[in-house]
Amino acid sequence: MELNEYIDQLPLVDHHCHYLIKNVANRDERLARVSTEADDEYPLFDIKNRLAYWEFKAEAQKFGSPAIVPWANDAEYSAYNQRLFSHYHFKRLFIDVGFVPDDAILSLEQTAAMTQTEVAPILRLETTAEKIMTTSATFDEWWQKLQAAVKNAKQQGYVGFKSIAAYRFGLKLTDVSRADAQAAFTQWKNSGVTRLTSSTVISYLVWNLSPLIIATKLPLQFHVGYGDADTDMYQGNPLLMRDFLNEWSHQGLKVVLLHCYPYHREAGYLASVFPNLYFDISLIDNLGPSAMERVLDEALELAPYSRFLFASDASTYGEMYAVAAHRFKRALTRHLTKLDFVPEDQLKNWAAQICYQTSERIYLEK
Amino acid sequence: MELNEYIDQLPLVDHHCHYLIKNVANRDERLARVSTEADDEYPLFDIKNRLAYWEFKAEAQKFGSPAIVPWANDAEYSAYNQRLFSHYHFKRLFIDVGFVPDDAILSLEQTAAMTQTEVAPILRLETTAEKIMTTSATFDEWWQKLQAAVKNAKQQGYVGFKSIAAYRFGLKLTDVSRADAQAAFTQWKNSGVTRLTSSTVISYLVWNLSPLIIATKLPLQFHVGYGDADTDMYQGNPLLMRDFLNEWSHQGLKVVLLHCYPYHREAGYLASVFPNLYFDISLIDNLGPSAMERVLDEALELAPYSRFLFASDASTYGEMYAVAAHRFKRALTRHLTKLDFVPEDQLKNWAAQICYQTSERIYLEK
Amino acid sequence: MELNEYIDQLPLVDHHCHYLIKNVANRDERLARVSTEADDEYPLFDIKNRLAYWEFKAEAQKFGSPAIVPWANDAEYSAYNQRLFSHYHFKRLFIDVGFVPDDAILSLEQTAAMTQTEVAPILRLETTAEKIMTTSATFDEWWQKLQAAVKNAKQQGYVGFKSIAAYRFGLKLTDVSRADAQAAFTQWKNSGVTRLTSSTVISYLVWNLSPLIIATKLPLQFHVGYGDADTDMYQGNPLLMRDFLNEWSHQGLKVVLLHCYPYHREAGYLASVFPNLYFDISLIDNLGPSAMERVLDEALELAPYSRFLFASDASTYGEMYAVAAHRFKRALTRHLTKLDFVPEDQLKNWAAQICYQTSERIYLEK
Repeated sequence: MELNEYIDQLPLVDHHCHYLIKNVANRDERLARVSTEADDEYPLFDIKNRLAYWEFKAEAQKFGSPAIVPWANDAEYSAYNQRLFSHYHFKRLFIDVGFVPDDAILSLEQTAAMTQTEVAPILRLETTAEKIMTTSATFDEWWQKLQAAVKNAKQQGYVGFKSIAAYRFGLKLTDVSRADAQAAFTQWKNSGVTRLTSSTVISYLVWNLSPLIIATKLPLQFHVGYGDADTDMYQGNPLLMRDFLNEWSHQGLKVVLLHCYPYHREAGYLASVFPNLYFDISLIDNLGPSAMERVLDEALELAPYSRFLFASDASTYGEMYAVAAHRFKRALTRHLTKLDFVPEDQLKNWAAQICYQTSERIYLEK
Repeated sequence: MELNEYIDQLPLVDHHCHYLIKNVANRDERLARVSTEADDEYPLFDIKNRLAYWEFKAEAQKFGSPAIVPWANDAEYSAYNQRLFSHYHFKRLFIDVGFVPDDAILSLEQTAAMTQTEVAPILRLETTAEKIMTTSATFDEWWQKLQAAVKNAKQQGYVGFKSIAAYRFGLKLTDVSRADAQAAFTQWKNSGVTRLTSSTVISYLVWNLSPLIIATKLPLQFHVGYGDADTDMYQGNPLLMRDFLNEWSHQGLKVVLLHCYPYHREAGYLASVFPNLYFDISLIDNLGPSAMERVLDEALELAPYSRFLFASDASTYGEMYAVAAHRFKRALTRHLTKLDFVPEDQLKNWAAQICYQTSERIYLEK
Repeated sequence: MELNEYIDQLPLVDHHCHYLIKNVANRDERLARVSTEADDEYPLFDIKNRLAYWEFKAEAQKFGSPAIVPWANDAEYSAYNQRLFSHYHFKRLFIDVGFVPDDAILSLEQTAAMTQTEVAPILRLETTAEKIMTTSATFDEWWQKLQAAVKNAKQQGYVGFKSIAAYRFGLKLTDVSRADAQAAFTQWKNSGVTRLTSSTVISYLVWNLSPLIIATKLPLQFHVGYGDADTDMYQGNPLLMRDFLNEWSHQGLKVVLLHCYPYHREAGYLASVFPNLYFDISLIDNLGPSAMERVLDEALELAPYSRFLFASDASTYGEMYAVAAHRFKRALTRHLTKLDFVPEDQLKNWAAQICYQTSERIYLEK
């Protein structure tokens, strides 16, 4: 089989994505809104002048959605989604359940049925910590419950953890003392605000849950770089994670850096010198369609092919997953085709690792 | 009309450029010196080993300046300039009058005649603040006069404002108190140095003039990234502007990031999540000719096409404006041609927005 | 002669490389290990899934090393190395003797014979300072001996100096006082640790040895950006060197920035505005083979061609030097070929400057 045909038919594990939504009326605006990271206040005029919107529309048309309208009924909507997901050979979706779009299909079983994939959830550390805070009287109680949540996660079906430290203060995680963490927790608890933004509390929990996460053999994902206006991208540079990686990578913590753009070169470098460090370029493969070949090439300048993963970070509509798959496989094919001094068997091996094998190895390790 | 022909004939609004100069004797050295951001101490040997110098010479030759000599008389020099500017369909020049090269043609009317364009000036905030400081006894007097200058700018023909905070301390603008600003002003006033470098004073004035600028409906430009050795490019990262953008973009301040290289990806990201944020890649289109296609592609990875503008940042000689126009249109054509899933009408629409329509919309809003 | 043939036959001065090693038994693993910056703890599995490993193997095969085995005897090993180095026209190797791989060939004469090149050493400032500290009772004694080492370096055959400040604390060199340096020295001396990591001591010595280095007319190299996990790449951004460059570049210090990735654009910018500043993209040309054309293009976006140098940063095996030469010349040819508005003589002139002339000019100045 030719390399391009081989890559086309490879199954995809989407190791970082979100909920799909129901068959709703305002499909055109929802499709436009999900084609950008901007919030609802951002002008629709500018969204419709972004390339991703046009790519999403083209993808919808390709799969028989000639106009951007709601589907006549749920069965048609479901059949449409099946066409999209099966066309691109999606095999598994690992859903970060910490973000819930309006009209989300919350049932993972229903999502599995509609996409004909295996679906498993990812546990967000900060949102879990927030929920537990509201029901904990003291730091000790909170910390005990949070540790228990991590220990029990695998048994409850979770296949990984995720930290959104980058959305709350940045990636410069440090080893803070228990006393400092306790003081910051108390301040947070007394503030009346559930949202956790204390760099002290977040650093403490991510740092000190790491040995428990290692024990579960599940990976820990980090939001890195590109995101909505709510992330301070200046503080989202993965080079800031050096202390954390020096401490935990060598002890066996599997770390997965998500998105990474525009720090994908930095992420690739980290993967080339730290053990157990994986990364992806999700969110660029659908929201930055013209960028994909260049960004994938840059991401792979230094990184081992065994450390790079497919993901979409998609939500809401099948088109977002589909564009990611389409653009990613095309860019990967083009990248590998240029490596004329590597045997074709090896190129196919790398493609398979990237599309699904590595994700299955690190997320589904017994 | 084919896309490339369509783009070729589009008018150009150069929303950020500087003064042209008179017909002078040392034309060869002046052309070399303006082909780089380096100062006069920098060796001519190295300047002549930069690509921009060769591109400027090739452009001069193309338009009938066979040797690098002064023109026989002003009429020939003027005719030569008309050939250059009309060939590339320059329609408007918005001149930042805060930088004055030696032998500058200071009359905007004369510049308009020589280039056959409409010319309008941009007001620099820091230099205006400096001038007013020298004639103000107190902080209050200075602040009143500076506010008046902003309020009257439109009436006096200005079409926008510009901050060079990046040349003075960086882009991390903060909301400083009036008391702190007053203390810093007094220190500055008493220092005997006119040049304004206080981050406190600059932050105060840019932050607190913003509501007045919004009222004028004129945009506020910022120098970002690439510039001469006098800018600390480490502090010129536009991600540092996040607090400022969070405060003012949503209230309607039209912000235009100039140059941006090597932070053009960061600028494109900001444009994709903040309302009213525009940017360009001026100065690369003429001083980095081999970079242009790549940098334009990178700038447009995430940004709406409705937020990206042509500009040259040129000064001194017509060749600098011409190379920018030439390289910019070529790169834009190549970029749009690759988007085979977008209807050609839409591609033409984007090209027109970028070359002149968006600049006319945001700078000439009534 | 065609441009590509001309570049092929140009001699190469490798102005930054390390020791070769002897003919050892575990050649396969040594070749794998030197194809990455990762340390020995890093999994061989991931190293063998990096592109550089495959490129090194392909290069070995090309020169008659069909299997990755030790050579039958030293004569065959030596002949093999001669084939590699002469094929790529290596003329000179400037060896940073501060890093010594296992089984290194420490004799520069033997290295010269085996590679048929002229070999000269580079003096590392920090390791020299460490050695002298162990034999100095006081700060004054240490500082006198260190100054003497710099003054005598040229006479002892050294052709340049190197600072690894980026491996010890970062590139934000400052002008520290003698009193502060003395206090930090005493703390270091009393710590019992030979390794020098004090930012105060390193800043002091690099800053204050600079006038002596200027007097020798030898260049001062800096490790910048890409390196093993031991460097904090966040602190390895050359824009942080602005204060140092402002102080010393104008006084005639020839500064050479090594590697630079992923800050090669920043390095190119610095070269375009500071006098006497040179740089290379070593280590990418062999450890990131798929990156080479793009990184070289990016490095040359703003930089004068008279400021860019070939280097490999290779050590251990001839393949590492060879891949660098191969990839570098190919990328340079491709870059120059695109410049269709520059006379071919000028393109050849630039290629010659980059491959050997500039290095000979700045390192071998009498």
